[in-house]
Amino acid sequence: MPDTKLSEFELIRRHFTRPVAHTDLSVGDDAALMTPRPGMQLVVSTDMLVAGTHFFADTAPGDLGWKAAAVNISDMAAMGAEPRWMFLALSLPAVDEAWVAAFAEGFAACCARFGADWAGGDTTRGPLNLCPTIIGEVSAGAAIRRDGARAGDDIWVSGSPGLAALGLRHLRDGLPLADGAKETCLRSLHRPQPRVELGLALRGVATAMQDVSDGLLGDLTHILERSRLAALVEETALPWAPVLAACSDEAVARAALTAGGDDYELVFTAAPAQRESIDAISRQLDLPLTRIGQCQSGEGLRLLARDGMLQPVGRAGYDHFS
Amino acid sequence: MPDTKLSEFELIRRHFTRPVAHTDLSVGDDAALMTPRPGMQLVVSTDMLVAGTHFFADTAPGDLGWKAAAVNISDMAAMGAEPRWMFLALSLPAVDEAWVAAFAEGFAACCARFGADWAGGDTTRGPLNLCPTIIGEVSAGAAIRRDGARAGDDIWVSGSPGLAALGLRHLRDGLPLADGAKETCLRSLHRPQPRVELGLALRGVATAMQDVSDGLLGDLTHILERSRLAALVEETALPWAPVLAACSDEAVARAALTAGGDDYELVFTAAPAQRESIDAISRQLDLPLTRIGQCQSGEGLRLLARDGMLQPVGRAGYDHFS
Repeated sequence: MPDTKLSEFELIRRHFTRPVAHTDLSVGDDAALMTPRPGMQLVVSTDMLVAGTHFFADTAPGDLGWKAAAVNISDMAAMGAEPRWMFLALSLPAVDEAWVAAFAEGFAACCARFGADWAGGDTTRGPLNLCPTIIGEVSAGAAIRRDGARAGDDIWVSGSPGLAALGLRHLRDGLPLADGAKETCLRSLHRPQPRVELGLALRGVATAMQDVSDGLLGDLTHILERSRLAALVEETALPWAPVLAACSDEAVARAALTAGGDDYELVFTAAPAQRESIDAISRQLDLPLTRIGQCQSGEGLRLLARDGMLQPVGRAGYDHFS
Repeated sequence: MPDTKLSEFELIRRHFTRPVAHTDLSVGDDAALMTPRPGMQLVVSTDMLVAGTHFFADTAPGDLGWKAAAVNISDMAAMGAEPRWMFLALSLPAVDEAWVAAFAEGFAACCARFGADWAGGDTTRGPLNLCPTIIGEVSAGAAIRRDGARAGDDIWVSGSPGLAALGLRHLRDGLPLADGAKETCLRSLHRPQPRVELGLALRGVATAMQDVSDGLLGDLTHILERSRLAALVEETALPWAPVLAACSDEAVARAALTAGGDDYELVFTAAPAQRESIDAISRQLDLPLTRIGQCQSGEGLRLLARDGMLQPVGRAGYDHFS
């Protein structure tokens, strides 16, 4: 039963105050205090997740907590940075303590998994809204930005993009998925694994990088725009996960792979001379890394389809206002 | 007219991308990059402001932008820290570009006034919700926390708490206010001035500090609890601004002064030996600083009322879930 008597202070004390490992002062003052390590740049990202837009209001609270942290931590992975300190502002329509407890457990588990102290936040009443802010560190100058790709660089992607999108289609539209595939896809959707270790391993190797949050090809266009380049991606080179290959609707699977969001894999560019290094990183992390195309001079992204036709690709990412 | 065709990217480019003075990389990548100054601690606070809970949905957008930044920057003032980098995540029900432009102007103006780069954020669609996160810096060990007050310390408050609460009562309940008073109170409510310069001046002087966001006496109890102290506050010593003294309803004025939120003044403690220094700071900043009571051993806050009676004061602050 919702316990509407539980105060904001008590809620924070019980569920949102966690042990910290490298924070000088966390919950309980006007602000948190922390000491950055010498020689490091700070890397900061904030995200806002809204019920109905970014998740279903009835998502299991533990999954939602994990995902809110993972989405935000993924931005550290995409910069090659170490997640260090996490803050969470949230508004809740009412206090259901069991929900809050499970949510906080999921959020804290994801922070702990990736080495971030949950160092503070703000709790208020309103329509369900989650706003995590992550602060990471990276050796000065070592961040992997979007604007460093060069003509001739290979384009790579980690893991198997598209699984979360299939999971979403299953939940939203009843897309049929076999039992094992369903679990895999829903796990990708609800418990995404930000590629922090990969991001760190790619410092000095990748020339540009970003995470796949809105769709592989659409997100790749951001790297191309920031780096002022064109690119050719080969459809036959894309990593078709077994689950995608087994999907009853090939068009849906193809859309999930090329334009599905929410997997939080990394798309990155690197000089061809780095291929062996990248294969070694793939083996070391036990994570598939797939070479899907090449950067070129010019502008625009083209997809070389299975049938040999060249297709221009627009900024196919998800736009919250379009 | 709402322009629902305006994309998220274009919205960010036009209105949420501002020149930065001390940020290495701002809007346009997965995360922002910045270099902390050597010997500094980071000071971080995040706030969430929800339409209906924290502000009226029809508040003028420029005022709302200013206030969202001011509320958050006030936490830097309360720690004696310099505001350095601001991030804003927000969700908007629809894109009314004129509204967004005015909102962003107000937000940027407040950041600029207090020296913070607007370094990044996130924009999405949903019920109106504003989530600013400020990162400040303070010399290591110099932050003014809530837990440093000592028995015998004086208790001080800046400015004239209560004006914003009268403004709110005017808007919400039709409390009559004379013309000049109305402007003063609404300005306090809509364009609060975080006491950043005061916070910086009080480093090495104040033993504990916090900002008055939920009500003077209630917020003071947080200092007492964190410092494990009691206190006596004298009602006759409280700063009755002319506007409060002229209020037609004395009980309302008294409640505004002692328990009204949203002024973002600072309440702080300091040894009696600091009285001259504090008076000098008051003159230098042209800001009234009023000694209102004293910290004592024990626990609990008591108010010595005008009639000579001692009244225990509960945690009278605003609780979003009570």
